Amino acid sequence: MGIEIERKFLVQSEAWRAATTSRQRLTQGYLCREPSRVVRVRVAGEQGFLTIKGAPQGLARLEFEYPIPVAEAHQLLQLADGPVIDKWRHLCPAGGGLVWEIDEFLGDNAGLIVAEIELQDEAQAFDRPEWLGAEVTEDKRYLNANLAVQPFKTW
Amino acid sequence: MGIEIERKFLVQSEAWRAATTSRQRLTQGYLCREPSRVVRVRVAGEQGFLTIKGAPQGLARLEFEYPIPVAEAHQLLQLADGPVIDKWRHLCPAGGGLVWEIDEFLGDNAGLIVAEIELQDEAQAFDRPEWLGAEVTEDKRYLNANLAVQPFKTW
Repeated sequence: MGIEIERKFLVQSEAWRAATTSRQRLTQGYLCREPSRVVRVRVAGEQGFLTIKGAPQGLARLEFEYPIPVAEAHQLLQLADGPVIDKWRHLCPAGGGLVWEIDEFLGDNAGLIVAEIELQDEAQAFDRPEWLGAEVTEDKRYLNANLAVQPFKTW
Repeated sequence: MGIEIERKFLVQSEAWRAATTSRQRLTQGYLCREPSRVVRVRVAGEQGFLTIKGAPQGLARLEFEYPIPVAEAHQLLQLADGPVIDKWRHLCPAGGGLVWEIDEFLGDNAGLIVAEIELQDEAQAFDRPEWLGAEVTEDKRYLNANLAVQPFKTW
């Protein structure tokens, strides 16, 4: 359990690609997509995860994450409400022990690329690389739970 | 993961009490209460559980259960949709390696007592004790997810 404090940005160039150190394919769906709570099933390579998030409150959000067998995660995806989200997650060192998680969406969200950084507190400073675009942290269209049912291609 | 095959009955006397071998207090709430899937948080003594169930199909239901830290289960109960269910679960040997789980509800469901037996297949025979009442397996009012929002006292 923890409080997740995350800021989310668009990217304004492809320069981030040269700085990545790894990528992983993520497939995820939602058992619950209420404004007040989300229950997410994720397949990340050979691992499954079940994650519960509370309502976003500013930059912070209550988050509980549990690893589960990947075969069960695949089965749970079939119980999901709405289409699954499919994306590449690229990791890119952000300095100061921080990491940019850059999500390059596929399928109905193809064309959307979003960079996220997880912070220890809301006031924490971080370096802004030149590829970083506009902040969209509080724009709920970019919540993955919403992208599942109102994908980027429909915007 | 598994398929849960369960039959559910009312009780028609208090004679089951003399046959019980243990009881445990269960507190549970629902992060999702859709007809097609349920996400349940349960506190059972000093253990927490997160459980996902698919839609009931006859006597069978897809079920996934994961133990979680009890402190996190208490926090997740606060994200639940609707009131929590509070009950004593009594165990009572049913013969042939089977077990009666007898749920004695508290709070807004006080007065309701339901006996459940989990089977390996839908045709499996089992002994019917004299205290066993009418079968309610397919009566959705008795689903705990429904009892949370339409408790017994409102019937």
